This record gives sequence, structure tokens and C-alpha cells, in this order.
Amino acid sequence: MKAYKEMSREELLSLQEQLNKEYEDVKAKGLKLDMSRGKPAASQLDMEMDFMNVLNADSVLKTQDGVDCRNYGILEGIPEARRLMGDMLGVPAENVIVCGNASLTIMYDTIARSMMFGVMGSTPWCKLDKVKFLCPVPGYDRHFAITEQFGIEMINIPMTQTGPDMDLVEKLVSADESIKGIWCVPKYSNPQGITYSDETVKRFAALKPVAKDFRIFWDNAYVIHDLYEDRSDSLLEILSECEKAGNPDMVYEFCSTSKVTFPGSGIAAVASSVANLEFIKKTMTIQTIGYDKINQLRHVKYFKDVNGMKEHMKKHAAIMRPKFEAVLKVLDRELSGLGIGTWVKPNGGYFIAFDAKKGCAKEIIRLCKEAGVVMTDAGATYPYKNDPRDSNIRIAPTFPTPEELAVAADLFVLCVKLVSVNKLLEA
Amino acid sequence: MKAYKEMSREELLSLQEQLNKEYEDVKAKGLKLDMSRGKPAASQLDMEMDFMNVLNADSVLKTQDGVDCRNYGILEGIPEARRLMGDMLGVPAENVIVCGNASLTIMYDTIARSMMFGVMGSTPWCKLDKVKFLCPVPGYDRHFAITEQFGIEMINIPMTQTGPDMDLVEKLVSADESIKGIWCVPKYSNPQGITYSDETVKRFAALKPVAKDFRIFWDNAYVIHDLYEDRSDSLLEILSECEKAGNPDMVYEFCSTSKVTFPGSGIAAVASSVANLEFIKKTMTIQTIGYDKINQLRHVKYFKDVNGMKEHMKKHAAIMRPKFEAVLKVLDRELSGLGIGTWVKPNGGYFIAFDAKKGCAKEIIRLCKEAGVVMTDAGATYPYKNDPRDSNIRIAPTFPTPEELAVAADLFVLCVKLVSVNKLLEA
Repeated sequence: MKAYKEMSREELLSLQEQLNKEYEDVKAKGLKLDMSRGKPAASQLDMEMDFMNVLNADSVLKTQDGVDCRNYGILEGIPEARRLMGDMLGVPAENVIVCGNASLTIMYDTIARSMMFGVMGSTPWCKLDKVKFLCPVPGYDRHFAITEQFGIEMINIPMTQTGPDMDLVEKLVSADESIKGIWCVPKYSNPQGITYSDETVKRFAALKPVAKDFRIFWDNAYVIHDLYEDRSDSLLEILSECEKAGNPDMVYEFCSTSKVTFPGSGIAAVASSVANLEFIKKTMTIQTIGYDKINQLRHVKYFKDVNGMKEHMKKHAAIMRPKFEAVLKVLDRELSGLGIGTWVKPNGGYFIAFDAKKGCAKEIIRLCKEAGVVMTDAGATYPYKNDPRDSNIRIAPTFPTPEELAVAADLFVLCVKLVSVNKLLEA
Repeated sequence: MKAYKEMSREELLSLQEQLNKEYEDVKAKGLKLDMSRGKPAASQLDMEMDFMNVLNADSVLKTQDGVDCRNYGILEGIPEARRLMGDMLGVPAENVIVCGNASLTIMYDTIARSMMFGVMGSTPWCKLDKVKFLCPVPGYDRHFAITEQFGIEMINIPMTQTGPDMDLVEKLVSADESIKGIWCVPKYSNPQGITYSDETVKRFAALKPVAKDFRIFWDNAYVIHDLYEDRSDSLLEILSECEKAGNPDMVYEFCSTSKVTFPGSGIAAVASSVANLEFIKKTMTIQTIGYDKINQLRHVKYFKDVNGMKEHMKKHAAIMRPKFEAVLKVLDRELSGLGIGTWVKPNGGYFIAFDAKKGCAKEIIRLCKEAGVVMTDAGATYPYKNDPRDSNIRIAPTFPTPEELAVAADLFVLCVKLVSVNKLLEA
């Protein structure tokens, strides 16, 4: 393969003509495909329909301590669900509150609580002139949407192969008291699939923020979402690292079973120091009498324990792996050596991140859409939907069927080529 | 029966001695009973265990429009659940958002949203010097706990037999812009079981608050919670009344199936004007991708429609009615004519409210507790837990068995008598 930038103007023009023709041919097919959504496929959900049989009219709906799950109570979640979610994260049950159906809601409520009531005695953030959050980029759009809604200023932190640029994180938090938090997806990051290295986790745990109410928002969304059994990433457990480093209260960790059982009908949890949880419960007890204990019990009975959960995730992986590989194969085959894009091969998670040449992402996504393939909007992976390089594209390979995916990936690489050639000819 | 205040000092002293003896006898029994909790009894929950069989591995978990309930999406709830909850309230489905497991959480989030983001363009309440809420008393402690947590000043509004004192409500809201809302339980009010009259509802709908962001928080918790088929109360539907009166956006209505199916595993909803719902969704869409659609579907399949719901409530009533009547019978038999307390006989809801002589409620509850019967704390039915007359006691007859209830009610009236005699002798 010859890199595009090595090509002469004539070669590029000829290539442009050929790609334009190919593009018009695909467009004529009238595709209607979607690579934008980080959702499990129907086949994944079909595979776990036995989840619906776990509880029935003959079930004893009591906790291990004999509390009736059908009635009010147990704010922090039933003990066995706290243990299950704790085991998933590698933390003790006492550090876990199991909540409702979405970790997103726990994160939103955590920010809202800090805005209105502060953090363990600190000034409510809404009373401060300025509140800032660090945002490793590219990152998860729904994180950025929360901080944007609350008027929190977001500062981009570049991602590296080992996690966020920790030199920059350390420098900023130790200098600016208005920096109150950082959004992290530490394992199989959204969208790059990068797992933070041990050194990165240790540097996080050892941060010396000037703001005493600084918290790490550790969204461990993909903690057991490996694609391969023989090369899964491992992530250092941060709660104990923070404790060792003398920062026991510095982290809130979030997780859910949204992509383990059924999105929207799973259970979500927050893990943190007991002191943080006690503070959280002071507002939580006003907001609710308790979350859905029957659904918590359903999860516990379905998995038995964390090993059951991990076995179950292998079945998801078996369905997802070929899809990831189909996309990666097309990227490899069609784009290697052309110098018009880079991508990461993740060992887990739900996304593949593609970095196009500067200034090309929006146009690639526009062309894909015009030919019938919807991708995540360009910029979505950056705060304020503003990717300053207009380069990052999030590919979500899980929802379409493998056949749809092959067609969609072919169109995608075609658009990458065409937009890159156009860009080079403009220059 | 001779009224206590008609008795001579000697008669009272003799009565006191006798009551003290009776009290010591009961105390010696070492009872351990609870009349404090507005929870369904285990027998009610046993009766509806078929709810657990509605969905299973063979169910088609799709909405009427074919959307997969097992996956992400549908912020406002599945259409058939919106219709079901709308029918329960007597409002169109388009005026309903079906949420998670607790109307309490929707109410909390509604207050939190108003504090942080205002109401349809108004100044966020947290930016105002003063925010006040009207609180019909006695009322629901968890309402008052929400407004207290947000630092909202609460103003007591006396309840009458037809609802809150509307002269006072009208006067206050038309004079004070800092009054932003009122808490109402309009049907079978907590704790008195009073249903607002048609005139009261019409006067609510026709309010002319100076605050444009004033909202009525209409917690219709007991909308279908009748105890009797032949004498259930009826409540005017407030959304349409507000619209007729030119105040379409003035009310948020809340409801849930917490005491219809299983508390903690039910579904909850907010009903309001489309304009209010659109505003609510702007923050809701940041807080969640969607609520538990499978549980929404489970409710729809279980009840089929609102008639199924109402039939189901008759089974709850059949279990609850004898308990209410057992307590009322003891009150009637033991306290009628003594002039030491008044109570309302409700046609539905979960409570009986008892008003003791001024200054007696705390002591009655203390004595009950000392003899092994837990009642709701005195003062709990007032903002700041402060009943200025120390008179109101909330009796929750649903959770104990009928046998337990008979024993508990006997002790209760004994304590009422004893404390009243002591009070009279002090004077």
C-alpha cells in the first residue's frame, strides 16, 4: 500500500475519481445501517432469556437475613447483591450501595448532590464561582453531558496508551482548587478500549489535589467485559490503592449490569469509602426508601456469584468478538499503510475508536450517513461536542448483525479514503 | 361514658390508679408490636405472588410498537404503561412519564430540578433568597423531609374535612412570590384519610399565585386505594381542572404501584402538562437513558388495563378492611364520649389519624413504646417534626396481623386514657 501523502497529484485525482464512483455505487444500494449505538445485539439478549425464569410465584423472595424483598426498606441494597457487585469490582460489600437500573443515574445524582450539598462538609459546588472537571479525551459523551448541564467547566486531558496524561492531571489538580473531579472509564475506555496501567492507577490514588472535595469518578462500566479469555486486560483495584496512598475518600466507583443482563433492567452500584457512603446516604434516604430489591435478588439468583457472572460474560464475548474482528479486519485490510487513520484493537468494552486525519471526521460521518450508515456524531467523544482536531470517530460494532457490519465497515473505509483524498487535494 | 373533664379530682385519681395498674399488667407481657409503618402486610403480598409469573423466558418482551424492552431507550416509558398509569389517574397517556420504582424519587428529583434549573425558564430556586412551601398539616413526613433538606421554608396549612384551608392557601400564594409550591395528598390524605372536595380541587385549579413558577405537588398516592366498594371517595381530576381554569402548567401529579403490586418493585409516574413534561425531560435525559421497561411491561401484562388494577385493589381491601375496622372498633368502644381524642374513619388509604388532647401525643407514644408497641413518632406528621399542639398521632393498621392489632389497639387506648388523666390532674 502506498501512503496517500506519498502520492502525486495525478495519482490522487485518479484515486478520487475511482472512489467517487465506488461511493455512488454503494449509495445507490440504499443501505439503512447503524454503527452508532453501544447496545448489545438482540442475539445477546436472546441468549440470556433464562434470566426471566429465575424468580417465579414459588420463589422465596427474602434476603439471606430473612428480610422480605417484596416490601419497603434496605436503602443500601440487599446484602447478597452488595457482595455480588463488590466482588465484581474487587471491593468488600460494605463499600457498596446497590441502587436502581442505571449507573448513569448514580453518577448524575452524585454530581447533583455535590452541587447542592457539597462533599462531606465542603461548600456546595453551586455556591462556588467556578467548578471544573478534568475530562480524558476522547471519552464518554454522557459523562460530559452531565457536567455540561451543571455548568461545570470541562478541561480536556489527552489519553495515552496507559490512560490519561498523568503529568497533566497531577499538575492541574495540585494547582487549581476549582478542579473538583475527573471522569474516568479505567478499563476498556469508551471509546478507545484502553485500560489504565498499574502506574496510572497508582498515580491517581496518590494525587494531591488542593481541593479537599476533589473526587475521581471511576466509571468501571466494562470491568468484566472482556472479549478474549487469553488476553483480557487487568486493572488495579483503586479503592484499596487510594486507601494505601492515604486518600481513602478520593474515589467514587460506578458499575452496573446493563451490559451483563438487560440494559434498562439491570442493577447499578456505587462503591466508595464507608465515610463517603454515609454522606451519600444522608441525601439518598430522603430521595428513596429503597431500590428494587426483587430485581437485585433476581440478579443474585441468576449468577450465584461473581464466577457465574464471568462465565456469563464469555457468552456475550462469543457473540461480540466476531463483530469486533470483522470491523478490525476491514480496517486492517483497507487502511493499513495508507497513513490516513489510526485505531486501537481493544481486548474488551463496546467500541473501536478511529482517528482520521485532522479535519476529516465530520465529513466522513456525513458521507456515511448520506449512503445510509449512521455513525456516532463526530465530536461526541469530546466535551461540548467539540473535537478540536475533528478527528475521532467512535465505532460501535455490537448492535448490527455480522452481515450488516461487513457492509457498514466497507462503506466506512471507503468514506475515510474519499474524504482523505479530498483533503489532500484541497491542501 | 362520662367525659374525663366532667370528673372530679377524686374520680380522676381513682381512675389513674386503675389505669396505672392495667398499664403495668400489659407492660409485664413484654409485647413487641409495630403500628408505625405504612406498609402492606405479608398476606397482601402473598396474595399477589402470581405477579412473579407474568413474564418468563418465553415472553415476547416488546412494546406494542415492537420496541425491545430488554434494551436501552424510551425515556418516557413504554406507551402501554403510560396509558395504564394515565388511566389510573384519569389523564391521557401523553401527559404521563413512567419512571422507576418510587414516586418519592420523582418528587425529590422534581424539587431538586427546580432548585438547580428553575421551572420552565424561571430563576433556579437555589439562586433565590427565600423559597417557601405550603404544607397542609397533618401531612406526610417524607414530603416535609424533602423540602427541609433543600432549605425550603415550610408553612403549616390546617387541614379541614374538605382538604386544606383554601382561604389561607389563596391568600398566601397571591401575596408572596417566594411561595413556590404546596404538598398535597388529595385522596385519602396521609394521615387523615380525607379526600379533597370538588370545591377544594376547583379552588386549587383556579389559584392565582404571584410566583409564575408555583406548582401544586399533587401526590395521588392512594388514587385507587379504596377500603369499601360501596362508599369510596371520588376526587376531581386536577389536570383538566387546571387547564379549564387557564392554569395548565400549575400541577405535577405523582403516583405509583408501590401499594398495588410490591413496594420497591413497582412503577411510578408523573403526570403533568406536555409543556412541563418537555421541560422535565431536558434534565431527565441527562440523568438516565430510560427506566426499567421490563418491569413496566410486567405491570401492563399483569393488570391488562385499569379495570384489572381496580379489581386487584379489592383483594388488598379485603385484607386491610378488617384491620382498620378492628382499630376503629376499639377506639369507638373505649374512647367515645370521653372527650380525650378525636379520629377520622377513612374510606381508603393506609392510615388512621388520632388527635389526642393538646400536649399528650408524645407521652402517649412514649408509654406505648415502653410497653412494647411502636407507633409513628409524635410530630412526624408536621414539618420540622414539630406538631405545635403535640396532639396528632398516625396509626398504621396494615402491617400487623389482626390479632397483633387487637392487642396493640387495646394498649394504645389505655395509654391515651392514662396520659389524658395525668394531664388533667396536672392542671
